[in-house]
Amino acid sequence: MTYRAPLADIGSALKYAAPLLPAIEQGLFGELGVEDIEAIVAEAGRFAAEVIAPLNRIGDTYGTPFKDGVVTTAPGWKEAYRGWRLAGWNAVTAPLEWGGQGLPQIVNAACTEMWHAASVGFANGPMLTMAAIDALNAHGSDSLKRIYLEKLVSGEWMGTMQLTEPQAGSDVGALRTRADRAGDGSYRIKGQKIFITFGEHDFTENIIHFVLARLPDAPPGTRGISLFLVPKFLVNADGSLGPRNDVRAHSIEHKLGIHGSPTCTMIFGDGGGATAFLIGEENAGMTCMFTMMNRARLAVGLQGVGIAECATQQALAYARERRQGRTSGMDPSKSAPIIAHPDVRRMLLTMRAATQAARAICYATALAIDRSERESDEVVRQQAYAQASLLTPVAKAFSTDIGNEVASLGIQVHGGMGYIEETGAAQLFRDARIAAIYEGTNGIQAIDLVTRKLPLGDGAAVNSHMEDLRGVVGALDASNDPGFGWTAVRLGDAVESLARTTNWLIARLAKEPEAVLAGASPYLRLFGFATGGCLLAKQALAALRLGEDASARLATTRFFAENIAVGAAALERTVVEGASGVIEADAALALP
Amino acid sequence: MTYRAPLADIGSALKYAAPLLPAIEQGLFGELGVEDIEAIVAEAGRFAAEVIAPLNRIGDTYGTPFKDGVVTTAPGWKEAYRGWRLAGWNAVTAPLEWGGQGLPQIVNAACTEMWHAASVGFANGPMLTMAAIDALNAHGSDSLKRIYLEKLVSGEWMGTMQLTEPQAGSDVGALRTRADRAGDGSYRIKGQKIFITFGEHDFTENIIHFVLARLPDAPPGTRGISLFLVPKFLVNADGSLGPRNDVRAHSIEHKLGIHGSPTCTMIFGDGGGATAFLIGEENAGMTCMFTMMNRARLAVGLQGVGIAECATQQALAYARERRQGRTSGMDPSKSAPIIAHPDVRRMLLTMRAATQAARAICYATALAIDRSERESDEVVRQQAYAQASLLTPVAKAFSTDIGNEVASLGIQVHGGMGYIEETGAAQLFRDARIAAIYEGTNGIQAIDLVTRKLPLGDGAAVNSHMEDLRGVVGALDASNDPGFGWTAVRLGDAVESLARTTNWLIARLAKEPEAVLAGASPYLRLFGFATGGCLLAKQALAALRLGEDASARLATTRFFAENIAVGAAALERTVVEGASGVIEADAALALP
Repeated sequence: MTYRAPLADIGSALKYAAPLLPAIEQGLFGELGVEDIEAIVAEAGRFAAEVIAPLNRIGDTYGTPFKDGVVTTAPGWKEAYRGWRLAGWNAVTAPLEWGGQGLPQIVNAACTEMWHAASVGFANGPMLTMAAIDALNAHGSDSLKRIYLEKLVSGEWMGTMQLTEPQAGSDVGALRTRADRAGDGSYRIKGQKIFITFGEHDFTENIIHFVLARLPDAPPGTRGISLFLVPKFLVNADGSLGPRNDVRAHSIEHKLGIHGSPTCTMIFGDGGGATAFLIGEENAGMTCMFTMMNRARLAVGLQGVGIAECATQQALAYARERRQGRTSGMDPSKSAPIIAHPDVRRMLLTMRAATQAARAICYATALAIDRSERESDEVVRQQAYAQASLLTPVAKAFSTDIGNEVASLGIQVHGGMGYIEETGAAQLFRDARIAAIYEGTNGIQAIDLVTRKLPLGDGAAVNSHMEDLRGVVGALDASNDPGFGWTAVRLGDAVESLARTTNWLIARLAKEPEAVLAGASPYLRLFGFATGGCLLAKQALAALRLGEDASARLATTRFFAENIAVGAAALERTVVEGASGVIEADAALALP
Repeated sequence: MTYRAPLADIGSALKYAAPLLPAIEQGLFGELGVEDIEAIVAEAGRFAAEVIAPLNRIGDTYGTPFKDGVVTTAPGWKEAYRGWRLAGWNAVTAPLEWGGQGLPQIVNAACTEMWHAASVGFANGPMLTMAAIDALNAHGSDSLKRIYLEKLVSGEWMGTMQLTEPQAGSDVGALRTRADRAGDGSYRIKGQKIFITFGEHDFTENIIHFVLARLPDAPPGTRGISLFLVPKFLVNADGSLGPRNDVRAHSIEHKLGIHGSPTCTMIFGDGGGATAFLIGEENAGMTCMFTMMNRARLAVGLQGVGIAECATQQALAYARERRQGRTSGMDPSKSAPIIAHPDVRRMLLTMRAATQAARAICYATALAIDRSERESDEVVRQQAYAQASLLTPVAKAFSTDIGNEVASLGIQVHGGMGYIEETGAAQLFRDARIAAIYEGTNGIQAIDLVTRKLPLGDGAAVNSHMEDLRGVVGALDASNDPGFGWTAVRLGDAVESLARTTNWLIARLAKEPEAVLAGASPYLRLFGFATGGCLLAKQALAALRLGEDASARLATTRFFAENIAVGAAALERTVVEGASGVIEADAALALP
């Protein structure tokens, strides 16, 4: 089956979970109305479903052959990219002055989800270009912007994000790529980067590398890192392409999935040094890189959502078609579609509810970013920035865990057919698996959440979030719709588990850092359960309030509360009781 | 890194979890002593680690090329199989009169785990041969046994198990392969089977297919299925190979994993009919097949354990070597092995504890099978048979779920390196994924557990199991070793959750079958949590009692109780509160 843009679900999450409607009403987006946004999202959905999705499988089987330094993408991919950028999809949130459309992040969040649902391998490169645009726009000099920004915004050139080195993965501060001052204001870079997504490809004539490197006199660790722009081809004063720069792809990786996305080892300066231009200040590279990484983290979370959505649709379609066995009381000469079997329904509902919860968290994160950029009041902007910072690691890690879990269930619903590559469920499972690792592993996200995000504003950000969740639980308590089942109780439990666990962690941040770190991952999941459940409930409550058909929203919310969020208490115990068992376990960590 | 046989962990699980020692003391295995068993297991571990494991990767990359009906296995595989069978490993449990060693099932369980840890693709074919031997020995005529059994036992010929057809997967009763009486006592088979493991290969000269088919006058459904033996080459009276039979492999599947194991579509009778011999009675094929399937189900559970063990060892080795970042208070110029980071420790401990719990459940199942065959008292044998029947679906489904989860964590511990195929973590992740599907999906196992196994002996089997678990919790309560942390409380909670949920399900089996089916999968997991935790605790208590170094067993048990079994209460709620939300959710199961 083919991917269909889930416009009703996306619309509900945008309007009532993020929630977009009050932002529009208060004029946060000027003249932009909800119908405009729905029209843009629908058109993106059409492009994703009709142009990109049909290319996903060939990207998997064709891969990205690498020969003599040149990467060839799968047949049809280059043309699809050209159509995509000419339609303006690369420029959705980019600044108007550089040819962008200046649309809200939340609009792009919905689009990004759909690009990734259609093909992660395809959407991976553009995702990083968008992050690069943000960094260059926020930190670059006017002259760099003039030369590079318009072409990056239009997608005529693409960008890359180059942090990782063999000894510097999660520990970016350990990187060794060296930058020397050339004397003319530019720099010369020498070193090796690995795992570089779209480091080389045939989509665009030029590729603009955003590279972290270290000056000879830089302090150690992350305080001595600078961000450089390194074009594949140097650019002449008139904007035309000049000579090839001293940077090249050395090899590509043979990966579990996203075969359509070339993952390169890059060599800088084996001809003497790659010409590079500083972005921002010397030794302030991490600040610039965080601008890129935060956007990229939300986008990777949306990969998780997109893959989960695609896997859910495929499993639903298969479960309606495939007939095996009978339900109780059925004519023994007939057979039932497997969607009629309760155990299969449980899998499908898990897929659907978890996907929608992750989507809602990602969209809420995107709207917080919009508020942090657009609110007129500086204090409100800063509060929104804190909220976006709090939610970003959850959006990234929770959604990509869900992506893995839902893609795995997608295989299970298909039975033996799911294990056969031609079916497509296996590709989603393989493609999904990287998202929990790159742009900061999910463990790093959890550590970021507990050690850096919980203390924000002396706890104000998380407290404000808790208030929001408690408001939803209050509204559930007040609603007496029987379709909610045990939702109010189970989400109430989850929110109070989250509150207690948050306080427990904050109280130990300074004195017992190891205990806090030991509980980081289960805490992030607990955060996702409580938040995701409440954001689903917001949508169900809105549908009831508006007198729309609320049955699907009620059933999804109820399933999430009774079957997923119900795990909150165990996660709380794991955090508050489990730390010593993690720390004092050397004996259990020996090799046989 | 290479696989090492985890002899200490296996020995502990055998002796104290299964538990083997009382069985030996009562003379269940005659003269066979614990030292004999340990020696056999150690030798199997040596063969698995030294001969099979080094061939696992080439099996993945080489696959099983198929040309003109012939399958070629990877370089070295045929020779390794020959060495394996000549060493007697195919014949461990086979009957003495046909050249077998007549050893207990539990000895073979430990061996089977290690074959699969070394290479699932390799061990898959022999696993099914052993199941075929059981079926032929239990149900075959003397003449069939005389011709085939000795060569199957020695492994000179291999067996296959052929149930699945395109329209008959989980619903075996829907199969259409037709068998006609030839008039001379033999039969002629026509039809197509799919997903046949080792349906064609170059390990052995002859392949003996065990095929389910339907006679023209058979009743519909599973009551009209018969089991046939269909040799690839007919066998002459003197035992030499005769003409080729009318059965052939038509194609092989392109699968997510286990690339070394050929998965074939088989065509029977396109030359008029494959010569076939009835095993057991006409229309009694399901009884015979269940003999094969029950053994195969335990063996597939052991695949899950083996893969989980291998993934755990690989992750532990990597986490000790790979250095990234610092722990709190560490010299900022140094970096720590990632095993020092609490979040990584949590992943590794999850892997280790879950693996050991699954192993203990599988070994306990194997010993129950031994008791069902060897106890002198008929009533005790029947009780043991009921216990084995109760535990088999848990051994299969819980262990293979754990296999998937642990293999996925194995990738996560490796970070970006885990996504690169050369590292090997990705192969384990791909290879693991089928085990939750074949030999009855894990959903089918859960349904079998709640609908067929809980009622066994009017609840006597499950009640006896609960007594055993409560005994362990009592012993934990009585122990005051601080190394147990919250173990007694958390396992006590899990056991009581299991008891309540069991009663809730049994009470509804007749009147509310849909509600029971809706909770089957979470119930099976709850069963695994309570049982696995208690079987780990048995091993820790034994180590304490014997004055051995108990630290690793204590830490593993504690981690399992505080971080995994702690989820029991949520699973209970899911079963007893969640059913309506699963059944009444049509609205949430629409396609966008």
